Amino acid sequence: MSLYLHDIPLAQAKQAFQDALQQAGLGQILARETIPLDENALGRVLAEPVWALRSSPHYHAAAMDGFALRAEDTRGAQPSAPVTLRLPEAAQYVDTGDPLPDWANAVIPIENVESLDQDGQIYADVRHPDFIRFRAASVPWQHVRPLGEDIVATQLVLPAGHVLRPYDLGAIAASGHDSVIVARSPRVAILPTGTELVPIGTELRRGDILEYNSLVLAAQVKAMGAIPTRYSITPDDFEAICARVEEAAQAHDLILLNAGSSAGAEDFSSRVVEKLGRLLVHGVAVRPGHPVILGMVNRLIVNELIVNGKSDESLAEESINHDSINHPPLTNPQIPIIGVPGYPVSAALTVDIFAEEVIARWLGRRPAELPLETVTMTRKVTSPPGDDDFMRVAIGRVGDRVLAAPIARGAGVITSLVRADGLVLIPAGMQGVEAGEQVQARLYRSKQEIDRTIFCIGSHDVILDLMAQFLSEHERRLVSANVGSQGGLVALKRGEAHLAGSHLLDPQTGDYNVRYIRQYLPDVPVRLVGLVNREQGLIVRRGNPKGVRSLQDLARAEVTFINRQRGAGTRVLLDYHLEKLGIVPESVRGYTDEEYTHLGVAAAVASGRADCGLGIPAAAQALDLDFVPLFHERYDLVVPRIYAESDLLAPLFDLLKSQSFQNAVRALPGYDTGIMGQIYLEA
Amino acid sequence: MSLYLHDIPLAQAKQAFQDALQQAGLGQILARETIPLDENALGRVLAEPVWALRSSPHYHAAAMDGFALRAEDTRGAQPSAPVTLRLPEAAQYVDTGDPLPDWANAVIPIENVESLDQDGQIYADVRHPDFIRFRAASVPWQHVRPLGEDIVATQLVLPAGHVLRPYDLGAIAASGHDSVIVARSPRVAILPTGTELVPIGTELRRGDILEYNSLVLAAQVKAMGAIPTRYSITPDDFEAICARVEEAAQAHDLILLNAGSSAGAEDFSSRVVEKLGRLLVHGVAVRPGHPVILGMVNRLIVNELIVNGKSDESLAEESINHDSINHPPLTNPQIPIIGVPGYPVSAALTVDIFAEEVIARWLGRRPAELPLETVTMTRKVTSPPGDDDFMRVAIGRVGDRVLAAPIARGAGVITSLVRADGLVLIPAGMQGVEAGEQVQARLYRSKQEIDRTIFCIGSHDVILDLMAQFLSEHERRLVSANVGSQGGLVALKRGEAHLAGSHLLDPQTGDYNVRYIRQYLPDVPVRLVGLVNREQGLIVRRGNPKGVRSLQDLARAEVTFINRQRGAGTRVLLDYHLEKLGIVPESVRGYTDEEYTHLGVAAAVASGRADCGLGIPAAAQALDLDFVPLFHERYDLVVPRIYAESDLLAPLFDLLKSQSFQNAVRALPGYDTGIMGQIYLEA
Repeated sequence: MSLYLHDIPLAQAKQAFQDALQQAGLGQILARETIPLDENALGRVLAEPVWALRSSPHYHAAAMDGFALRAEDTRGAQPSAPVTLRLPEAAQYVDTGDPLPDWANAVIPIENVESLDQDGQIYADVRHPDFIRFRAASVPWQHVRPLGEDIVATQLVLPAGHVLRPYDLGAIAASGHDSVIVARSPRVAILPTGTELVPIGTELRRGDILEYNSLVLAAQVKAMGAIPTRYSITPDDFEAICARVEEAAQAHDLILLNAGSSAGAEDFSSRVVEKLGRLLVHGVAVRPGHPVILGMVNRLIVNELIVNGKSDESLAEESINHDSINHPPLTNPQIPIIGVPGYPVSAALTVDIFAEEVIARWLGRRPAELPLETVTMTRKVTSPPGDDDFMRVAIGRVGDRVLAAPIARGAGVITSLVRADGLVLIPAGMQGVEAGEQVQARLYRSKQEIDRTIFCIGSHDVILDLMAQFLSEHERRLVSANVGSQGGLVALKRGEAHLAGSHLLDPQTGDYNVRYIRQYLPDVPVRLVGLVNREQGLIVRRGNPKGVRSLQDLARAEVTFINRQRGAGTRVLLDYHLEKLGIVPESVRGYTDEEYTHLGVAAAVASGRADCGLGIPAAAQALDLDFVPLFHERYDLVVPRIYAESDLLAPLFDLLKSQSFQNAVRALPGYDTGIMGQIYLEA
Repeated sequence: MSLYLHDIPLAQAKQAFQDALQQAGLGQILARETIPLDENALGRVLAEPVWALRSSPHYHAAAMDGFALRAEDTRGAQPSAPVTLRLPEAAQYVDTGDPLPDWANAVIPIENVESLDQDGQIYADVRHPDFIRFRAASVPWQHVRPLGEDIVATQLVLPAGHVLRPYDLGAIAASGHDSVIVARSPRVAILPTGTELVPIGTELRRGDILEYNSLVLAAQVKAMGAIPTRYSITPDDFEAICARVEEAAQAHDLILLNAGSSAGAEDFSSRVVEKLGRLLVHGVAVRPGHPVILGMVNRLIVNELIVNGKSDESLAEESINHDSINHPPLTNPQIPIIGVPGYPVSAALTVDIFAEEVIARWLGRRPAELPLETVTMTRKVTSPPGDDDFMRVAIGRVGDRVLAAPIARGAGVITSLVRADGLVLIPAGMQGVEAGEQVQARLYRSKQEIDRTIFCIGSHDVILDLMAQFLSEHERRLVSANVGSQGGLVALKRGEAHLAGSHLLDPQTGDYNVRYIRQYLPDVPVRLVGLVNREQGLIVRRGNPKGVRSLQDLARAEVTFINRQRGAGTRVLLDYHLEKLGIVPESVRGYTDEEYTHLGVAAAVASGRADCGLGIPAAAQALDLDFVPLFHERYDLVVPRIYAESDLLAPLFDLLKSQSFQNAVRALPGYDTGIMGQIYLEA
């Protein structure tokens, strides 16, 4: 029994899994089922080709309202030489869709004939005259939909493996079917395990971990076309987990056993798989997701289980689809199990990487594939050379280039997946990607969405969140990366952003940003636009227990400060005032401990990691902290002229004039919108 | 009361509809509803932004299994100078995810320490030693996930209007929600009308029209995020249609009234809308879809209706979702109605063009948009200059160009939508598109799928259907256009196909294709590969009532022939033999009546439109006809060398060697696979 993690290459791990599935007879469609041809067939996968049972139209049909006739009888008709035909022998009225009489081979539209009575006079009942007169000849089969125009009996309508779309349902119906044979949807059991886990909706205590992986996993497999069953949380108890896995194996095709897949003290997954079946892989050289388990577990054939489909009502939680449990018995002696790592990003990507292919094979469809796009990396990224490294990136088009900016890589940061516009795979064997290097990204969003993306790189302010929300109502997506004011100017210089937020104080003049723009962007014509005047001050815990009143207090030994990173406008502000006060950084405890956003600073204070930090009042309010106002400062947007005049940014400039946006900003504490939209520099 | 169709420009029609919706208070989200945060929230649209209720993690958490400690205490540790700390004062074991003790600010991974007992000896219970010893210093916050690393309380998690994906559900849960506020799904009533309509599954009689539009429309609106209700067929009866519309208006947000939207005798839709509300638009300059009706109908506030949600059980058919009927009462005094044309392609595109935007607005999401691709038209297309013309096209990459070949444009041909890889809009004001012109196509398929597409243009054989089915199992999509053997060689010359099927007899040598290749493709290196030897003969009705035995019989006055188009190999064969027999075309009745495929010829015979046609026995068998064998001929594939050696076509050449494919071909009548894969020319 081995509890060690091995670093098996991704391709090898997949192959081992696939081989085991093949051996177990699980290498293809699980089963066919016949379902009615209705709108619920949408998204199902054809298990067999659809061949046409009959032709459509199944008779020669009039394609216009008019008179069916023999084209031969119309010969010679022209404006100066009308031809007259008698009803019903030589012409017969037909509505669109009516069958042609056997003797007819063309239709003349009603608007092209005169309806006449016995005496050759215009007849009021235009559809039932005695004669018709017309002044143009018809060619055979004119305005006729011949039998089989759409579908000829026996032709291939759709191949097996096709995922049904709305139009397809019509073609299948037209070809004579009232049901379709599709692949049975795989049933996937999702088993969250962990003593420290608590379900969504629980009041959290310190140390509780919210269990939402099962929700994400269930939604993922549902989107893949499978039917998920979410089980309730099983504590870290070897026997309990074994019992739960055995139970799930009765009524499911695949088990996702979440967490416990590593090699720690309470990581039971590999031992559970070894006990109940066969451990194929423990540990894959893939990032995120490293401690993945792939295995096969035996399905006990217990009669009551099979008959009732379910062993113990009290164990199985409310499942999404009770049908999945009340289905005919599953008889495969083994089923696959995936030990899914606990970190949410690892968990989600593990399911994308390993479960999607299996579900696709069971459904008989092609594996899902994201659209590809060539992107330019905005910065150098290193990667463990042994791993296939899936890097989440933000993607936007800036000028001629589609840029990809790496997103924080912690496997615990679920929002990194939410924010990601795509994935860049750095394959095993590569040590990373250089800044400026072109790589392929798999897109989570459409190219149109990416073309609507505004890249804002620079200083952080919570107003950017508000702006993102407002812009999303105007066909724009604001993606902001927080690298500080100076970092933003550097990004503009490199052509890696459409605009930057900046609040860089010039100690000599008391002015903002202009000197820095001339320094960093001497050759780039920019517009400098006021956004807000905002308060800066000290964020402190409720009641200000350390009695921090001014920057002088930072030098007190019992006060721990949390700083912003170098290049941040707030850091510039701090350093400026500390110098003025003659306080050396070494005397400020925590000066070297840096956060990248105002909210990061507030969080550090809220958690007790620090006593205070310099920041904006909105951040203090967000975390229910107190605030000691110290300064006012101007926060501007720096926009290269080329973008300032672009369609892309037009809605953003409109926003600066919008009363409802200004009101929303003023509803936050410490903001003055008087300067919003004011142009300070047009260089 | 006007029954005339007016040609209102598309943009104007949409604007009129949108204005009316605005006036009726239906210009935005219909209603918000709170739903549980589970996998059924997938695909729903956020009606409000999600702001974080709490931070995640909500405490400083260990990011590794190891020992929590104060980074300050590790100063100076290095390989030659280990540091030892005592438990529990200076170090404490933590599992990944455990909260850090208040006094700690870093974690040292368990694999980097030695666990020691009181006496400084290695201790077996590695997690609970008396001392730990390590040889590297920690920096503050190392291997710690600080509070708020993922989400900080109050931050924007997702904007309103966002369509929920699996990962999003995790982020919403992590930010402290156990429910989400989404837009209520619009309820759409689909009312098929027409006396000649019969439901799917009915045995068809001549003149019956299969009603499958309601199925396609229901699936379309379902895919758009609405809840469809399909009503049973209402006959062409003004009062009955009015009653049905009034009923549907009680419990739905939008009515799609299918067919009857034109201006014919039994086209009641416009009058129904005028009677029950307001006719906004009748006739839009859009193709297909011209006779579209847009209007508003009044919702009767009848108490019983509102209470029961439904007037008459006997009228409403089994609905997809009974919830849609048992919902809280709808109180808007007016609701929109779209009169949808009857032809299936027009019907489907009308819903895409007019209903999607409305449903998107009601859900608060962006309108759906297909990916765009620049494509080169393979042939000239003319378009009525007044219309916005949506042209269905097949799309494939041949060489460096992405080509779009127009698909048969009849609005009755539902398979044209199934086969379409995209749409090209020829806007009003343009008379068409030239061959070779670049236009934008909206793609129905991914670029990857298009890159896997094999374009086969030339002669038709039912084996191509079989080949398409086999290739679909090998990551290739075979798209075949039937333009006859010579047309295929012309397409190869123009670089518009990867290969062509050809069976051109050289009357001088009795050989096939070689002379024509030299003539049409003098500069293109090609491989000529045998596919099959096949029978050609006369397709005749069951029992051969006209006693057709040979080509001589075509000259008989009472025999009507159906011909193939000029350039078809079968036409060449016919002309060759007619000339040999001294029969002039003028003496063959129906010689000028042309079909483009063998199945088209068979369908013409089956329907009685002709007595016989020259073709292959598989086509005769398909339609249950008799066959008079006359000749054998070779059917080859002509493949430019550049594609013959490509990865794209490799699976096709593999197929020619595959026993299962050869068996499948031989299962059809009249085929010999002896020459399959044989190379006749490598020029």
